[in-house]
Amino acid sequence: MLYDLIIIGGGPAALTAGIYGARKKLKILILADKPSWQVSSASLLENYPGFKSIAGSELLKIMREQLESYEVEMKDGAVIKIDKKDKGIFIAKTKDKEYSARAMIIASGRLPKKLGVVGEDEFIGRGVSYCATCDAPLFSGKNVAVIGGGNAGLEAALELASYAKKVYILEIGERFSGDEISQERLKKTGKVEFILNARTREIKGEKFVKALVYEDRKTGEIFNLEVEGIFVEIGSLPSIGFAKDLVEVNEFGEIVINPFGNETKTLGLFAAGDVTNVLYKQIIIAAGEGAKAALSAHKYLIKSA
Amino acid sequence: MLYDLIIIGGGPAALTAGIYGARKKLKILILADKPSWQVSSASLLENYPGFKSIAGSELLKIMREQLESYEVEMKDGAVIKIDKKDKGIFIAKTKDKEYSARAMIIASGRLPKKLGVVGEDEFIGRGVSYCATCDAPLFSGKNVAVIGGGNAGLEAALELASYAKKVYILEIGERFSGDEISQERLKKTGKVEFILNARTREIKGEKFVKALVYEDRKTGEIFNLEVEGIFVEIGSLPSIGFAKDLVEVNEFGEIVINPFGNETKTLGLFAAGDVTNVLYKQIIIAAGEGAKAALSAHKYLIKSA
Repeated sequence: MLYDLIIIGGGPAALTAGIYGARKKLKILILADKPSWQVSSASLLENYPGFKSIAGSELLKIMREQLESYEVEMKDGAVIKIDKKDKGIFIAKTKDKEYSARAMIIASGRLPKKLGVVGEDEFIGRGVSYCATCDAPLFSGKNVAVIGGGNAGLEAALELASYAKKVYILEIGERFSGDEISQERLKKTGKVEFILNARTREIKGEKFVKALVYEDRKTGEIFNLEVEGIFVEIGSLPSIGFAKDLVEVNEFGEIVINPFGNETKTLGLFAAGDVTNVLYKQIIIAAGEGAKAALSAHKYLIKSA
Repeated sequence: MLYDLIIIGGGPAALTAGIYGARKKLKILILADKPSWQVSSASLLENYPGFKSIAGSELLKIMREQLESYEVEMKDGAVIKIDKKDKGIFIAKTKDKEYSARAMIIASGRLPKKLGVVGEDEFIGRGVSYCATCDAPLFSGKNVAVIGGGNAGLEAALELASYAKKVYILEIGERFSGDEISQERLKKTGKVEFILNARTREIKGEKFVKALVYEDRKTGEIFNLEVEGIFVEIGSLPSIGFAKDLVEVNEFGEIVINPFGNETKTLGLFAAGDVTNVLYKQIIIAAGEGAKAALSAHKYLIKSA
């Protein structure tokens, strides 16, 4: 079976590319490892135009249903390698299968970045989490810390504030970069303590997390926060290990695209969304990028037919 | 009153920029001439991720309500000129007022392109229309022609097919560029006649339109179609007359932006959506572009504060 287009990913960029490609009657296979980590870990979205407020997981579900109203194939499976063969045929390999297509879109998103401190790996699932939406209810009445003062960190803290007794937010820099509106809401909960210039040094515990150790970057002083939950929200890394040979990456490991038509350095291979060097990682932007990549792939397929 | 940001426009790019800017707590004024012509003339959207099917006018209404849940000012008014003064202050002039801000986003969209043939101007509102959604019901049981075989033309034809007796679609090129899925639907109505290589020459009538005259580009033969309605769907032109001195435009009259951050050639002036040289004019893409422009304007305002 030779597809017209294989789309790798399961988030807003991939699903939008699927909708746009399907409307062009392309024979499409979507290979998704797991649902978009970024979107499903976003608690309540208020900045996706068309929905005053919607859960990330709900928006993804609607997009998936919208896509399924067209004739597209969707398969679960982590792509471990892609190749371009003779006659411009692309191959996507999963652990036990190979799929081929005349064009390809990489929209595989990102995975959470780790702190890289002692105790982090040891306590994953035992107090250390990368998804507040998933794990907040486990910390009812407890003290927790969120590491990272961007939008993701603030939203995690907001969600935690409905359950936890106290929420510390640690930001390594001198200011919180997340939306002012979220900072104000956090202050109103009366449960949140903001800590700037905090460099995390260690996560301590026995069977479960017991404390977070951080250093004040200005004074060098070391502090010990007694918390049972630690939510790491310090950003993410693009998921592109499988594609290294076919794309150029920038200093952040993101796929470099032509920002007008989403072409990569390999003819017939496109990329869209947070896996690329697009400047802002936002759902509405990723969706737009997915549409662009699909329209460019369609143009390419017509020309190379 | 000095605003942080003036946004010019009332379509998806402008409204999304407003939502993103408002969440950054910017003091925002949105100056909209009239509701987005492109979106409100789109009948039923099926390619905006999050809605399996929604009227363009309904989507705009939801976006506007979402924006109004924040503190932003919205005023009706056509901007006739913008300027940049000392200390980086931008001025937007309408017919009777002047507004000033520290940054500005142009998201004024496009206006329909005209055929430029004899009879076109004379019969506007008397058979000649640029908005099928608005005027289709007036042509119940009549013969009509749609000029233009892109998505806009196909969608206009579909909408007209529910009312008209017969719908001709004339395309000047050798193939229809609109989505295959719409072409198939049109065929199924049994009411539509597709005409390729047709160059419109004249619109004839007395008080109202009576006929469309076109030339077959291949044979030079002249044809006369007896129709009472003519829907012109041959594209659109960016609305940027008021901004000429401050922006660079390309060969299509579109504002040239840095596609990563939506900057124009004037520091502090950004542009987004269909008014720019973005490659594809689609609602989901314009919304993403609006978000980008607002995030860049916010960054600029912090730096220049």
